[in-house]
Amino acid sequence: MNTKRPIEFYFEFASPYGYLTSTQIDDIAARYGREVIWRPIMLGAALKLTGSRPLAQIPLKKDYFLHDIRRFARLLDVPLALPPVMPMNSLAASRAFWWIHDTRGHCHARKFARALFHAHWGEGRDMSRPEQVAEVAAALGYAPEEVVAAVQDERIKARLKEETQRSIDRGVFGSPFIFVDGEPFWGADRLDQVERWLATGGW
Amino acid sequence: MNTKRPIEFYFEFASPYGYLTSTQIDDIAARYGREVIWRPIMLGAALKLTGSRPLAQIPLKKDYFLHDIRRFARLLDVPLALPPVMPMNSLAASRAFWWIHDTRGHCHARKFARALFHAHWGEGRDMSRPEQVAEVAAALGYAPEEVVAAVQDERIKARLKEETQRSIDRGVFGSPFIFVDGEPFWGADRLDQVERWLATGGW
Repeated sequence: MNTKRPIEFYFEFASPYGYLTSTQIDDIAARYGREVIWRPIMLGAALKLTGSRPLAQIPLKKDYFLHDIRRFARLLDVPLALPPVMPMNSLAASRAFWWIHDTRGHCHARKFARALFHAHWGEGRDMSRPEQVAEVAAALGYAPEEVVAAVQDERIKARLKEETQRSIDRGVFGSPFIFVDGEPFWGADRLDQVERWLATGGW
Repeated sequence: MNTKRPIEFYFEFASPYGYLTSTQIDDIAARYGREVIWRPIMLGAALKLTGSRPLAQIPLKKDYFLHDIRRFARLLDVPLALPPVMPMNSLAASRAFWWIHDTRGHCHARKFARALFHAHWGEGRDMSRPEQVAEVAAALGYAPEEVVAAVQDERIKARLKEETQRSIDRGVFGSPFIFVDGEPFWGADRLDQVERWLATGGW
């Protein structure tokens, strides 16, 4: 029996570094016999608390950020196409995730998250509107009208709010944010340290 | 003749990630036959432009940051002791660097920067006052009264301002910020990419 605790992967769909990490994290975990629990959140709440803003809106940082994500994607050899709106409104996408999670299970939700990330950051498609999210979900077999209804369901709205608040309570303020046995790692550029922590049990 | 261009290493003395990088960058560069030009700046000017603040003052981020720099220092096996004031006022330290740079040369200035970083982040000593900076410089053979006079010299003040403005003009908004053949890398956690860029010439 595998008794190793899963890795927790917090991310925001509108975050390119969340996307880049999503292409790597399961493989890294698998090398050490671990699973990954994916947890999309709305990062805006934490950005308010830290007095920060989306990278695409910050003078000086914006130019570097656009250069860096392209360079990072080339290094990882994953597709990257800039969406027309940065950051998009990820409410519908995040709610759809938690609806699939709670009604079909985590593996299906993770599969949807991969497809959503690929559509948004791999193909550069806006995913702000429920209909756009439903289109991605439809390719995985979900009825579009069910998805559109789910993202407007008060229980699903509350579910995402709770997840977001819980992430803040745990100290999450950026995307990606990863916990390995309770140890926090922020950023796509901490994946080497995540892997070393998995390999060594800490230092 | 070695015709490879030097690496440029921008940093803020009050930045722990600048310190961590300072313990690695020369060795990394040397493996590829490169030298490193050290360039201390006052990061406050860029933080104003990006609407940011010193990490030690940001809710949520602060706790992670204090945990992360200790963990990072253990990984690199370098000493780390938190100074009593974070961030310290690094005006005197930065001006002293440029004074030594312009009167004695870059190698002496770099040696002073290493000693200053070690005193501040390796031993946890405040280095805000000119007398404290002069004490570190004195151990390297500089007359304390000369150092104290230099950091109040209008030409040296203007020199640091120019360096800081030039860094902003080049897009520097954080510490460390490294240029390899014009390619920008921000953060201590980009050193693996810096090394790969040096090894491959880019990707």
